[in-house]
Amino acid sequence: MTRSRISRVVVTPVAFADPPLLNVVGVHQPWALRAIVEVHTDSGLLGLGEIYADEIHLARLGAVAAVLPGHDPFDLHGLRRLVADVLGRETGGGGASFGGMLDVSSALPTVYSPFEVACLDIQARALDRPLSDLLGGAVRDRVPFSGYLFYKWAGHPGQPDDEWGAALDPDGIVAQAQRMVDGWGFGSLKLKGGVLHPDEECAAIEALRAAYPDLPLRLDPNGAWTPETSVRVAERLAGVVEYLEDPTPGIGGMAYVAARTDVPLATNMCVIAFEHVAPAVAADAVQVVLSDHHLWGGLRSSALLGGICETFGMGLSMHSNSHLGVSLAAMVHLAAATPNLTYACDTHYPWKTQDLVTPGVLSFEDGAVAVPTGPGLGVELDRDQLGVLHEQYLTCGVRRREDTVYMQSIQPDFTPNTSRW
Amino acid sequence: MTRSRISRVVVTPVAFADPPLLNVVGVHQPWALRAIVEVHTDSGLLGLGEIYADEIHLARLGAVAAVLPGHDPFDLHGLRRLVADVLGRETGGGGASFGGMLDVSSALPTVYSPFEVACLDIQARALDRPLSDLLGGAVRDRVPFSGYLFYKWAGHPGQPDDEWGAALDPDGIVAQAQRMVDGWGFGSLKLKGGVLHPDEECAAIEALRAAYPDLPLRLDPNGAWTPETSVRVAERLAGVVEYLEDPTPGIGGMAYVAARTDVPLATNMCVIAFEHVAPAVAADAVQVVLSDHHLWGGLRSSALLGGICETFGMGLSMHSNSHLGVSLAAMVHLAAATPNLTYACDTHYPWKTQDLVTPGVLSFEDGAVAVPTGPGLGVELDRDQLGVLHEQYLTCGVRRREDTVYMQSIQPDFTPNTSRW
Ligand SMILES: [Mg+2]
Ligand SMILES: [Mg+2]
Repeated sequence: MTRSRISRVVVTPVAFADPPLLNVVGVHQPWALRAIVEVHTDSGLLGLGEIYADEIHLARLGAVAAVLPGHDPFDLHGLRRLVADVLGRETGGGGASFGGMLDVSSALPTVYSPFEVACLDIQARALDRPLSDLLGGAVRDRVPFSGYLFYKWAGHPGQPDDEWGAALDPDGIVAQAQRMVDGWGFGSLKLKGGVLHPDEECAAIEALRAAYPDLPLRLDPNGAWTPETSVRVAERLAGVVEYLEDPTPGIGGMAYVAARTDVPLATNMCVIAFEHVAPAVAADAVQVVLSDHHLWGGLRSSALLGGICETFGMGLSMHSNSHLGVSLAAMVHLAAATPNLTYACDTHYPWKTQDLVTPGVLSFEDGAVAVPTGPGLGVELDRDQLGVLHEQYLTCGVRRREDTVYMQSIQPDFTPNTSRW
Repeated sequence: MTRSRISRVVVTPVAFADPPLLNVVGVHQPWALRAIVEVHTDSGLLGLGEIYADEIHLARLGAVAAVLPGHDPFDLHGLRRLVADVLGRETGGGGASFGGMLDVSSALPTVYSPFEVACLDIQARALDRPLSDLLGGAVRDRVPFSGYLFYKWAGHPGQPDDEWGAALDPDGIVAQAQRMVDGWGFGSLKLKGGVLHPDEECAAIEALRAAYPDLPLRLDPNGAWTPETSVRVAERLAGVVEYLEDPTPGIGGMAYVAARTDVPLATNMCVIAFEHVAPAVAADAVQVVLSDHHLWGGLRSSALLGGICETFGMGLSMHSNSHLGVSLAAMVHLAAATPNLTYACDTHYPWKTQDLVTPGVLSFEDGAVAVPTGPGLGVELDRDQLGVLHEQYLTCGVRRREDTVYMQSIQPDFTPNTSRW
């Protein structure tokens, strides 16, 4: 391998069935989209990456893929410059949609990310070592995740109920938690809020506490509350939640809340790029930052974010979007090699029913995933399944994540709950 | 190689002749000490590191070396824990002496550093790639250094004059600069101050400016001045120096000066560990941080410091102590793979007359060193020279860096110039 070059790059959009999970901006569409990036070298190595597949993002990935052949898979700084060159003036956000929840100012990190992961996969395969070894080595051999609870309908309108059924009140959430904990062994729970009035969501958290006296709990309303309401909720849930995630939008609002409660505030909304770190630190706005290698520009940048959090006395957790096994493997390697990632990571993994990596490597036991010990990411593409999920992409009709548009097709008067209460 | 283990570790103290370079705490002793760390693997690979060799530090390196066999050279997080375990309660600073100039609170980063560099050397050799490829890849193929000017005596007392001769006034400094620029091609110059009254050191800088109208200039008095004097010097040298380095001690003093001048302030004294970064940022005390992989705990931690500087809008430069070729190679790889290291690096390299790496790889052309393209650090030990420098260590009598003690043996009434003017 040694001085091998990238010979071929394939970007495959895929779609997989997604339940009607409710959130502050609406509801998940019936199909979640991802792009699978394959980077091949002239020495026969294959590296994998996975990322958002909204139409604009997909076009940008394709433009990068077209110029990658000939590039050295070890030259990550050069890869970043190359992506920047390809994006040129077209670096505005929006392309990688987050269902309307986030507003990124540059597409560079999200376009760069899957190619960086694939190159690191190649590098580690060249060494015949797990990818985590390129991030300083695994400090844990199992990565704990939190069970991710959602308010949801029983099924998508016009479709049969899914296996999870409805969850629209405390009892429904506790029942969902039971299924999560029994089936996956999660040792902590996160509730996606921003859907109902905060009093109802507090009641759900309190019902979870009653059902699970010892499990760490988190509530994430994605900025559904005013700063004043956030303070009120923090008072009610003090000692109950391990952290409140994005109770209110913006660094200013979060700082207002943080100054009035001892409940740690976490975010994956007001600090989502390196340019937000200094203002957040200056305002003492957040106590926990949720990293996300998709959003922050790959695994090495996420490690940098981890080091920044440690340096500035902030906690570190990990964010998730609906994802497949390639992303899960990357998340596990990153988490394993990040000493100060002491919170259980988020994952949407239990909510999907299909995958495209060869089964057996990534399994949940006691709510944790064992760090793959094979070379690179440690996962291989199941090409039959890749074909199935790509076919689903071709036929499903969804081309971008639009939680609000989809919700309005069902409830025409719906508007996002941001700062509603 | 793949899952090879560390099989043998050798720490060799060496000494090399050092001219009587003057600074704020005294004068360089006739011999500078370094420790060369060799880490061998059971697959036949050899990784190199270089660090301080003060007696206490050497004992700590030896204690780590004794327990390293069996360790995985890819497990850097584990290496750090192992060093912490070995140091146990013995982690107070002082062991790695900096001539009395710095006060580090923990020996962990400085003891960890040479082993981390050696392990990265091994990793890169296993890949048959240059070490910079493990840091994201080189963004430049030549690393520029600044010519490092010192006030100095003609020779050590009782010894013949060295080839540089005396430099104790502006003319002497300009002559020294001429020799540096003519011989090495440096494209920027740094004057080590803190030796004479600030007016005299300003005059030297102004003489350099007259002699070299286009070369970036720096002045580093190592905290010799009061905050008020620092402001006065900054006013005088505004537009003349690219930065003032540590004009006054401490984050508070630097912040006082920074608030009163537009001249960027740099430091390798008040921000020398990650615990200093947040206070310095909060106080807006410095505009440029000098990294140093010896002091900051290796190459990956130095890359983290670089990322922090970028994130918080601070400039990044690189500090040097008297060093040999193994350190120079590591500095060059780090600098090459750090995109925001836009200042020329410091180096004491021209001041030494001996080395212990095979000649030919590290040469200065136009003040820059080409990034080695061979595997790992790209340098090999010259074992004859290692023997010679080790023999010098054994016979020279110096066991720790003590600039003040040595100065007082010559000028009994000398006291450090810290905050003197
Ligand atoms: Mg969130
Ligand atoms: Mg300095």
